[in-house]
Order: sequence, then structure tokens, then C-alpha cells
Amino acid sequence: MTEPKTPAGFVSLVSAGPGDPELLTLKAANRLAAADVVLFDDLASGPVLDQAGPQAELIAVGKRAGRPSARQDHVNQLLVQYAQAGHRVVRLKSGDAGIFGRLEEELLALTEAGIPFEIIPGVTSASAAAAAAGIPLTRRLTSRRVQFITGADVTGDLPADINWAAIADPAVTTVVFMGQRSFTRLAQGLREHGLPGDTPALFAEAVGHPQQRLLRTTVDGLARELQGIEVVNPGLIMFGPLAFRPGS
Amino acid sequence: MTEPKTPAGFVSLVSAGPGDPELLTLKAANRLAAADVVLFDDLASGPVLDQAGPQAELIAVGKRAGRPSARQDHVNQLLVQYAQAGHRVVRLKSGDAGIFGRLEEELLALTEAGIPFEIIPGVTSASAAAAAAGIPLTRRLTSRRVQFITGADVTGDLPADINWAAIADPAVTTVVFMGQRSFTRLAQGLREHGLPGDTPALFAEAVGHPQQRLLRTTVDGLARELQGIEVVNPGLIMFGPLAFRPGS
Ligand SMILES: C[S@@+](CC[C@H](N)C(=O)[O-])C[C@H]1O[C@@H](n2cnc3c(N)ncnc32)[C@H](O)[C@@H]1O
Ligand SMILES: C[S@@+](CC[C@H](N)C(=O)[O-])C[C@H]1O[C@@H](n2cnc3c(N)ncnc32)[C@H](O)[C@@H]1O
Repeated sequence: MTEPKTPAGFVSLVSAGPGDPELLTLKAANRLAAADVVLFDDLASGPVLDQAGPQAELIAVGKRAGRPSARQDHVNQLLVQYAQAGHRVVRLKSGDAGIFGRLEEELLALTEAGIPFEIIPGVTSASAAAAAAGIPLTRRLTSRRVQFITGADVTGDLPADINWAAIADPAVTTVVFMGQRSFTRLAQGLREHGLPGDTPALFAEAVGHPQQRLLRTTVDGLARELQGIEVVNPGLIMFGPLAFRPGS
Repeated sequence: MTEPKTPAGFVSLVSAGPGDPELLTLKAANRLAAADVVLFDDLASGPVLDQAGPQAELIAVGKRAGRPSARQDHVNQLLVQYAQAGHRVVRLKSGDAGIFGRLEEELLALTEAGIPFEIIPGVTSASAAAAAAGIPLTRRLTSRRVQFITGADVTGDLPADINWAAIADPAVTTVVFMGQRSFTRLAQGLREHGLPGDTPALFAEAVGHPQQRLLRTTVDGLARELQGIEVVNPGLIMFGPLAFRPGS
């Protein structure tokens, strides 16, 4: 650790957006520029970290940084320790920090340790994926609900408690996070619960990264495409009455 | 109109975030700084417009700018006309442009007129409200789904086609946009479909604006609070297994 810079530490839980550094908020960029320490995830790395000042200590805490078990506990501990040493700590989380980001665990650790913090909201990859594909997440008459679900629970499998009436609704746009590995099974459940296999589907890989890829297809088509896939990049799946336009 | 600045016009459909100018993305701030013309909504006004350069013509197109009927058609027309005159046009929309923002209508008008455009995603007020209240939108075990619904359809009333099985699910966080006027009736439907009245609820008014107000209560409590309310500020309602902490 470097020398304490402020009498009392402070933690900013900062949303990094989908990866394109231009999709950081001005507030996020300011906090990075002023940070003593930046703890970042795998998905909140790359060019967004260039916004950190030269003084900042950059610490990777994602899966690739090792420590697969007790990883979240370790992150909580680091947050508390750096703050207690008086640092301005930035905890950088991908997309919007409040969406499938284990934010609660860190909030609890900070609250228990009595450390002041703020949460800076950001651009979720769901919004970025829709924008990249040129479609809205809601539609005035045909999609008045949008929902975000996860394709992997703590065990890495499709969650067992899926509300199929909510998910197989043809009048809603559903965005699946961490869903590439389990989508073939999810699609089977959707079919069994009445969602037509030709429902439009989008696969949005590495949005805002140089290797971005968009695939406009159907639920059935995507289920075939993702069968047995080796996941390399982060990817989102979107299905429902998507507003694909001819040529889009 | 001012003189054309670029040989061919271009439209940036820009998300303004919830209102706090620091929650603009760097890309949004850059597009505003370079714009010849900015067409903005009521909710995408105020200090965010300070990011526009001195050359920019600022045009209000929200409800308060009059023309209640044919309003969307008029906005579409203006977008096309300014772009065809060769301008760099920024269409500034509150929150994330793809969420309950009539984005599709404008995309179609631009596509039909053959005008090049981009969509810049942003921070939805749902993310900003959760961050302001110090809670995540998802929880690892208790809320693996989050959904955004609207409390008002085109007529201004509660939509008739609500999927109650999706909405009254106790294991999901629901965010209601434009829901202040109809929440008392929505809450009644929720009760009838089995959601306990003591389910935590948040009312987040004017998030990111100086008059921001947060009310932590329950579905029943909020239904009473909002009964017959006169709506002055934009407000979001959130309910479900919200992660309120003692003292938060
Ligand atoms: C742990 S979750 C975090 C989500 C993040 N908080 C957000 O709001 O986007 C990680 C998942 O988000 C999605 N994701 C994150 N960044 C992405 C990107 N740039 N492109 C596509 N999907 C992305 C993928 O589904 C990935 O498996
Ligand atoms: C037409 S919708 C646009 C939503 C916007 N696209 C977004 O992503 O936040 C307008 C509604 O958004 C919500 N809203 C927008 N800005 C808000 C703010 N600063 N605070 C609370 N609610 C807001 C309110 O429910 C309002 O009635």
C-alpha cells in the first residue's frame, strides 16, 4: 500500500459501462482521475483504466486474478483495508454496478466496517447492446416491459426457479446476462412454455470492445448457434418483439 | 436554421442520463460540444445542456414546448429537416434513450429519410434511483430478475395487458416508469395477485436533480402516499425484495 492521502478513506463504487471508455460517465472519469487505488474486475479493465491518474495503484480482483474461492470475501477485505488506511478507493465494476454485479456484498462489508461510500450508476451492457444493434429496449405498443435475467446462478447453471410465465411472454423484451452456455436449455424451456421459436433474438458479443459482434437471428437459430459454444467474450442475449429493420 | 456545417447531416440520438450533468457519458458530452443543433425533451434539459457549445441552436421539443398533438411527428420532421440541411444534430433524450423514450419512431423516420445516425446509450433513471438509494437492482439469491414497466400507456392509463404473474412475483425487482398517477390501482392488482402489501417499495423523485427525494416504504404504504397525488417531478417506483439496510 502507498501512503494514506486523505485523513478518512472513502470508497466510490463506480460503474464502468460496457467497455468503451467513451461510455464512462463524467463522474466515473473524475473519480478514476482522483483515485489512490482502483480495484477492478476483468470486465471493467482495458482502456477504461487509462482514465486513472498516474498516482493510482491498479489492482485486478477478477477471476483471472486468481483466488477463485473466497474471492468476494477477499475483495470486500481489500476495499475495507484500503479505505481504513485513508485512501480514496475506486471499486470499478462493469456495466451498471447494480445489475448482476455482486454490489450488495460489497455494500454490506462497507456498512459493517463503517466506511463512507457512494455508488455511481452507469451504462449497463443491455443498453449498450440495444444501441449498437440500432433497436430500443421498449416499444410503444408491442413491448411495454423489459426484463433482465441471468443465465447462470451461483453454481453456473440455469437458475432452477425461473418464472416461465414472465419469461415466455411474447410481449416483453428479455435480456439474458451470462447466458451463452445455458441458452440452448433456456430456449427449450421457452418453447415448452409457448414462446414461438421464430421470436427475434439478438446475440451481442463484446459490445463496445474492438471485437464486437452482433448476430440478428431467432430464438431457435440462436439456440443452435450457441450449442456447445466455448465462451471467450462477454455476450448478451436479447429476445422478444425486437425492432429489427430491414438492412439493420 | 443556421448555415450547414457539414456536407451531409448526421443525427446522434444521445442519452442524457437522469439529469445530473456528471452522469452524462463522455461520448454524450462530446456530441453536445460539437452539435450544430440540439433537440431536447423536458426531462433532458437543465444543466446537461450546458455541455452544448456556444454555436449550438437549442430547441425544446417536449410537452412544455406546446404542440401536444402530432408532437412525435413534429419531432421526427425537425430531425429529418435539420439533418438534410447538413447539420450535426443531437437528439437528447432523458435517461437511456432506448427505455420508454419513443426511440423507435425517430429511428424509423431517420431510416426512411436515409439519414445516417448513431445511438449513444446512457444511464437510465432506474440505475440512478437504485444508486441514490444505496441498493442494487439485482440480488444474488433473492432477486435474479429485474424488470422495467410503464404505469401509463398511450392513453395515460395503466396498460390493460399487464402480465400479473410476471409483476406480482415476490422474487423480482420491478421498476415502474411514469407510474405515480396509477400506482394506487397497480398496487391493488398486485395484492389481488398475491404480492404481500408489506413488500418493500422505493419512491425516487427527481433523481439527480436538486429537489431529489427518496422515500423507503412498502407497496401498501406507497399506494396510500401516492393516492390522488399531483405529479410535479419525474418519479420512479421500485418494489420487490429491495436491499434496504438499517439506517439507509
Ligand atoms: C457479472 S455480469 C455484469 C453486468 C454489468 N453489471 C452490466 O450492467 O452490464 C457480466 C455479464 O454482463 C454481460 N456483459 C458485460 N459487458 C458486456 C459487453 N461489453 N458486451 C456484451 N455483454 C456484456 C455479459 O452477459 C456478461 O456475462
Ligand atoms: C418517458 S420516460 C423516459 C425514461 C428514460 N428513458 C430513462 O431511461 O430513465 C420518463 C419517466 O422516467 C422516469 N424518470 C426519468 N428521469 C427521472 C429522474 N431524474 N428521477 C426519477 N424518475 C425519472 C420517470 O418515471 C418519468 O416519468
